Amino acid sequence: MCRWLAYSGSPINLEKLLYEPEHSLIHQSLHARLGAETVNGDGFGVGYYDDVEVPPAVFKDTKPAWGDRNLRELARHVRSPLFMAHVRASSGTAVQQTNCHPFRHGNWLWMHNGAISQFGRLKRDLVLAVEPELFPAIEGSTDSEVMFFLALTFGLREDPPAAVERMVGFVEKTGRAHGVEHPVQMTVATSDGERLWAFRYSTERRSRSLFHSTTTQCLRDLHPEVFMRVDLSGDARVIVSEPLRDLPGQWIEAPESTYTVISHNLFEMHPFHPKPA
Amino acid sequence: MCRWLAYSGSPINLEKLLYEPEHSLIHQSLHARLGAETVNGDGFGVGYYDDVEVPPAVFKDTKPAWGDRNLRELARHVRSPLFMAHVRASSGTAVQQTNCHPFRHGNWLWMHNGAISQFGRLKRDLVLAVEPELFPAIEGSTDSEVMFFLALTFGLREDPPAAVERMVGFVEKTGRAHGVEHPVQMTVATSDGERLWAFRYSTERRSRSLFHSTTTQCLRDLHPEVFMRVDLSGDARVIVSEPLRDLPGQWIEAPESTYTVISHNLFEMHPFHPKPA
Amino acid sequence: MCRWLAYSGSPINLEKLLYEPEHSLIHQSLHARLGAETVNGDGFGVGYYDDVEVPPAVFKDTKPAWGDRNLRELARHVRSPLFMAHVRASSGTAVQQTNCHPFRHGNWLWMHNGAISQFGRLKRDLVLAVEPELFPAIEGSTDSEVMFFLALTFGLREDPPAAVERMVGFVEKTGRAHGVEHPVQMTVATSDGERLWAFRYSTERRSRSLFHSTTTQCLRDLHPEVFMRVDLSGDARVIVSEPLRDLPGQWIEAPESTYTVISHNLFEMHPFHPKPA
Amino acid sequence: MCRWLAYSGSPINLEKLLYEPEHSLIHQSLHARLGAETVNGDGFGVGYYDDVEVPPAVFKDTKPAWGDRNLRELARHVRSPLFMAHVRASSGTAVQQTNCHPFRHGNWLWMHNGAISQFGRLKRDLVLAVEPELFPAIEGSTDSEVMFFLALTFGLREDPPAAVERMVGFVEKTGRAHGVEHPVQMTVATSDGERLWAFRYSTERRSRSLFHSTTTQCLRDLHPEVFMRVDLSGDARVIVSEPLRDLPGQWIEAPESTYTVISHNLFEMHPFHPKPA
Repeated sequence: MCRWLAYSGSPINLEKLLYEPEHSLIHQSLHARLGAETVNGDGFGVGYYDDVEVPPAVFKDTKPAWGDRNLRELARHVRSPLFMAHVRASSGTAVQQTNCHPFRHGNWLWMHNGAISQFGRLKRDLVLAVEPELFPAIEGSTDSEVMFFLALTFGLREDPPAAVERMVGFVEKTGRAHGVEHPVQMTVATSDGERLWAFRYSTERRSRSLFHSTTTQCLRDLHPEVFMRVDLSGDARVIVSEPLRDLPGQWIEAPESTYTVISHNLFEMHPFHPKPA
Repeated sequence: MCRWLAYSGSPINLEKLLYEPEHSLIHQSLHARLGAETVNGDGFGVGYYDDVEVPPAVFKDTKPAWGDRNLRELARHVRSPLFMAHVRASSGTAVQQTNCHPFRHGNWLWMHNGAISQFGRLKRDLVLAVEPELFPAIEGSTDSEVMFFLALTFGLREDPPAAVERMVGFVEKTGRAHGVEHPVQMTVATSDGERLWAFRYSTERRSRSLFHSTTTQCLRDLHPEVFMRVDLSGDARVIVSEPLRDLPGQWIEAPESTYTVISHNLFEMHPFHPKPA
Repeated sequence: MCRWLAYSGSPINLEKLLYEPEHSLIHQSLHARLGAETVNGDGFGVGYYDDVEVPPAVFKDTKPAWGDRNLRELARHVRSPLFMAHVRASSGTAVQQTNCHPFRHGNWLWMHNGAISQFGRLKRDLVLAVEPELFPAIEGSTDSEVMFFLALTFGLREDPPAAVERMVGFVEKTGRAHGVEHPVQMTVATSDGERLWAFRYSTERRSRSLFHSTTTQCLRDLHPEVFMRVDLSGDARVIVSEPLRDLPGQWIEAPESTYTVISHNLFEMHPFHPKPA
Repeated sequence: MCRWLAYSGSPINLEKLLYEPEHSLIHQSLHARLGAETVNGDGFGVGYYDDVEVPPAVFKDTKPAWGDRNLRELARHVRSPLFMAHVRASSGTAVQQTNCHPFRHGNWLWMHNGAISQFGRLKRDLVLAVEPELFPAIEGSTDSEVMFFLALTFGLREDPPAAVERMVGFVEKTGRAHGVEHPVQMTVATSDGERLWAFRYSTERRSRSLFHSTTTQCLRDLHPEVFMRVDLSGDARVIVSEPLRDLPGQWIEAPESTYTVISHNLFEMHPFHPKPA
């Protein structure tokens, strides 16, 4: 089980969210808080958009996030209006940079918490469905990256929700063909630098958690130590796989089978329905 | 808080103790079992003696032990009658190979769980006391390595218990001079390849735990899945910072302020008294 | 351009060949000797067979071989009658453990120097030809590993030379279908622990170099400092991508389009002809 | 022998100097160009000042610079008016992050090419001279870091040239006391974010090379592909241990025993004389 965080709003230093909150993502990577949760020590990654006219920056390493000095430096010096961060717990796939999230293709970033059940059995059929010219760009060995390339194949760059719905539909169909009962478990974040989409879905309708911060005022209430002196725009939003701090009423849990799209003054939540690919 | 394990007995594959027990050291490195314990993901090391006429082999890496494939390979292929293994949780010092345990000097190995309180304030005075010709051999930045070089300075190679007692005495004296109330917290294992010494001590007499397996029969009772088919000598012993499995009555907890010395048919426990250096 | 070495004979410590010769593999990894040769600093690996009844051990890391302390330790302590070592220069694929040679499957090891031209264009067609049940075992992103899994698909475990000939035939056919003029460039070593095969071939008949030591006496002449005191069997052989020392007349260069098979008292060289897959 | 580069001028992306020139620092790290030069594959570091009101950022890793994807990302996204970069060839000290340059203390950066001869013999006396309250901040095991902390001890923050002269004087005195003939070999760059100092000195007056770019026009002449479209201020300067491109007449070699100080419209060169500490 991995954990992730995504931010959209006025530019802030990454450390405001990655390090300063009491139960920040980096803190969570080391100290599992609830029950049987695993340690997320098998690599990490951040992806961020800035004003440089190049694809978003991606910084990944296989070391545990909690002790990584370069991440600490970067988080202190980088300001961004839209970024993602991910800490990984491998369930057996190699701990290597190409398996760390977020994945990038052109201007797009993608990160995932969850799994494709029995991925080894389905993998061949899944990668065969990836558009041949995208195929050589697959660098790692995770289910998450294959989901990304399937979504790209099914039109992520044109209509993200539809493409993810087709991706999930295709994985479920492939899973059924191999006798896998509940093939998909996911929360996913993806972005093109303008908008941010977050998906919560699982075949068995017991999806990993996903939370949205409510309003900028709420962010300030949650983390006065962090946000009081930051000039936050009214539309700043944080999406997290686990709440950064468990105050009741301050985080909205995304319902089962939904997706959210966030942009400057936009915050919409829609139902998510897997579609035939 | 680190964890460690030491073995002396008939040669066995390292994996018998590092991987196969239900709550093995490697398993412990990932899943903290009791209360507020930390994850030991900041590097690891094993040191082992074999029949090659060279110093013991030391294999260390800064990655978490639980996912390290090289450690898995080595543990499967290496047989040794005397070995040590250590998983590290850094309390701030750099995560680097030269800070991983066990440390080696000539034929000696040394590993440590615990800390010198306020080491930063004491460090200069402590390293100045290291024998000048040993000084350049200090490679890392931990308190544990300095303790090793102080023990070497105070005669570890001639009389290990006395040298460790003088080392502790010196650290305590230095601590008091700097107003540090409880300078030493330690369980330590050290060996020359023939004998194995294990120390349990802390200035405030609330030392980190240390356990010995009782008899070979006990090892078989504890881990039938591991030891039933291994041709164990009667004198095989395991010393661990945390019990590998919490069966009552099967592990002997070393009392406060004691040390143990183990060799072929030798198993002795003695009181430990810090001495003036 | 990578470099590799394979040994078959009476058991020796790996360091005898990896470190002690004047122009050893590890030395070569840092100091390119001839002309425009590249530095082999993008990871390394060793694979060795021992008497443990498990698959051969594989030790790989992404660091440069020349400074790796764990490799130095292992080479000093491990004795083996059949081992391989490889130092890598990436031509762009990720520097990660799963891309380091030798690759292992069951009891088989495989390592490669060379390339499949325009692998990105051919990759999809090549991996699709891998036996579906082997497919999920592909962990990395190199051409070399795909060649291994194609060879396994085409019968490596039954008839290694025929399987490699079919593998090469298939890659060449696939290359031609994509307009790639000279698809294959390779020297390959593979073993099942009993025998060792070494292949030299390239589509354009300008293959990377491959050398065999002649006789045990020759090994002693070449490296008196290494082999004088080693109790070498008469059939000990070393195969290398680059001579360890450029004494004329002491190394046999494998001719174009040949393969060698080596076992206890066996040393045979045969022509190599790609075959339809 | 390491290599380094420092830049002061209008803000530019780091990649303009680290990657784009034909014989850039990163290129040099892999392909030694002249004679017996070593490969600089034992780690790297960059330090840069930006407008964030915190100490300069430092990004270091133990991997070879040439294949490091995070460095590539950072260099593309970071703009800075004053930065340093260093590629390392270890002469035996551990390859670890704390041994990578530049070193940082407060707002100061420091990097070094060269060595203190027989550092092992002198190390104890040298570190004892470091101000006790600075002592615990020494994290690594290199001579270069000790030189930095000695310079800090001798007043680097008040009068950099005088402090470096005293540091060198002290190392030379210590060396003579131990019978070391030529203790110091160095080119050093240091900065507080406002000014940049570069030193060239060796006890035997055969110092490692150091070059300054002449004028902004010169930078454009040298690297039209890089600087034509960059809005460079007239005072932009590059200092390098090896010329990025060996066009005659375009680089000024710093004479023996000199130091340079560079700031906005300031470029001064002065003689360097070691002083009693």
